[in-house]
Amino acid sequence: MPERLGAPREAPLFRRLAIVGMGLIGSSIARAARRQNLAGSVVAADRDEGVCARVRDLGIADAVTADAAEAAHGADCVILCVPVGACGAVAKAIAPALEPGAIVSDVGSVKGAVMAQVEPHLPKGVQFVPAHPVAGTEDSGPEAGFATLFAGRWAILTPAYGTDPQAVEAVRALWEGMGSAVEIMSAPHHDLVLAITSHVPHLIAYNIVGTAADLERVTRSEVIKFSAGGFRDFTRIAASDPTMWRDVFLNNKEAVLEMLQRFNEDLSALARAIRWDDGEALYELFTRTRAIRRGIVSEGQDAPAPDFGRPRE
Amino acid sequence: MPERLGAPREAPLFRRLAIVGMGLIGSSIARAARRQNLAGSVVAADRDEGVCARVRDLGIADAVTADAAEAAHGADCVILCVPVGACGAVAKAIAPALEPGAIVSDVGSVKGAVMAQVEPHLPKGVQFVPAHPVAGTEDSGPEAGFATLFAGRWAILTPAYGTDPQAVEAVRALWEGMGSAVEIMSAPHHDLVLAITSHVPHLIAYNIVGTAADLERVTRSEVIKFSAGGFRDFTRIAASDPTMWRDVFLNNKEAVLEMLQRFNEDLSALARAIRWDDGEALYELFTRTRAIRRGIVSEGQDAPAPDFGRPRE
Repeated sequence: MPERLGAPREAPLFRRLAIVGMGLIGSSIARAARRQNLAGSVVAADRDEGVCARVRDLGIADAVTADAAEAAHGADCVILCVPVGACGAVAKAIAPALEPGAIVSDVGSVKGAVMAQVEPHLPKGVQFVPAHPVAGTEDSGPEAGFATLFAGRWAILTPAYGTDPQAVEAVRALWEGMGSAVEIMSAPHHDLVLAITSHVPHLIAYNIVGTAADLERVTRSEVIKFSAGGFRDFTRIAASDPTMWRDVFLNNKEAVLEMLQRFNEDLSALARAIRWDDGEALYELFTRTRAIRRGIVSEGQDAPAPDFGRPRE
Repeated sequence: MPERLGAPREAPLFRRLAIVGMGLIGSSIARAARRQNLAGSVVAADRDEGVCARVRDLGIADAVTADAAEAAHGADCVILCVPVGACGAVAKAIAPALEPGAIVSDVGSVKGAVMAQVEPHLPKGVQFVPAHPVAGTEDSGPEAGFATLFAGRWAILTPAYGTDPQAVEAVRALWEGMGSAVEIMSAPHHDLVLAITSHVPHLIAYNIVGTAADLERVTRSEVIKFSAGGFRDFTRIAASDPTMWRDVFLNNKEAVLEMLQRFNEDLSALARAIRWDDGEALYELFTRTRAIRRGIVSEGQDAPAPDFGRPRE
């Protein structure tokens, strides 16, 4: 998949694009939307006045407000870029301001719970097209965003049965305009797939970093010092936004706990192989997992350079 | 820690440096030793004739042989760069060729087991200085090595009581010459620290990649497609050399199983917090782990750029 943005659109896709929540994702959408001419105007909202001030300083939106409903007023597309657990409240707050024909979308890493929380609040004639860009970094806040964050990444849409196809196509065009490849699937399938490709890996990374930090026999400074042996890779993921991830786990509970159960069963088998000196079982698994990495690199989902292409002399 | 190599030595540290095993680590030592003038001549050995041919083509050693004893003959320093489980056999093979005063070292990720396997074979008057460079990439083979692999990384030495201090200082100078910072500790402490900073992280990465690959409800192509959500970080570690890692787990069994037990207890607590909607416990952990990442970046053990500085537009 190309990691570059194509040419900007000749005519904007939306008249007025409102973005509620100006963190890493929201601010990246604002930047990409302007650079790619995806919207006539970009209105940014964040309930934190300090974030609003920083967004104004960055100059990445045409208007900035702390009032989500004000941003949504007159917008033909509103994207909720708040933590999953806040989507329901924001939908409720903006509902009175939404005009018939407006599209509401989101960027949450969980789709079932978001749909259940948002849909009841939306007025008739407003289309909800849930979306999840599978992209991000461990950094947070409006300064962390950049216009190419979604280029070469997947964006998954999970519209409910009966959603206006024109609205779905408009949201598809938005993500394609930001360089993403779009895939449509059901919300439950999304939540299961992402549980194993994203949620459980994050949980495990948070957990091992926590375990290491708690060790009394190994001082924390030693854990940091010798982290190049593998541990440091986990700390990147475990540095992701705490609020966002708390909400992901609480809102995709069933799929996460099921995948975790499978992970645990496999880990028990691996521990048993170590205890009983079953080198063949270990070698077989380690060879199989190496092939998965090759698949990810050959499909353009990661850099082919060793060590993620970390900067070196 | 600086990630650059200093100026080359004016006079070589060793007359003849023999390297047994020409994979990622062995071939990186050969390159660094020549570039930094650490040895008058570098003799490479690998039991695989195909690897020997590739090393000859790469031109990174003065002599190349499939016979470890031949390489060790006349060497004032021999470094074993073979998987941990092979160190005993190699030590036995080279023992008759070792001259009094020669230094033997290794690069194994486990130190207790290597010392137990190697020491009994070494003739009197030969000094064994076990070493572990905390550096590497997921790639294998002589082509994967590079001269700056150890620059800005730690090298841990675990000499036994009574080892000639001059031999220890010579091995220290070798690693410092390749840009590493050297730390001396006991083998048991090393094996415990590395269990949590390296061995268990690798085991967990291998395990989650295996679990994901086995899923029937999620196809393998979907796991690869949506890996940018976190999973792809794990696949890098799980692409590491299978033989090397099999031997690490079998030879550091006690420490790995103990650390794994702690990891499991913590993971159970985390799963329970998710099941019972304990958002505060999740948020508290996720905030604490973020601080660990900052420590690793500020100590120069990882790139400060988001996403490991993965190449982007």
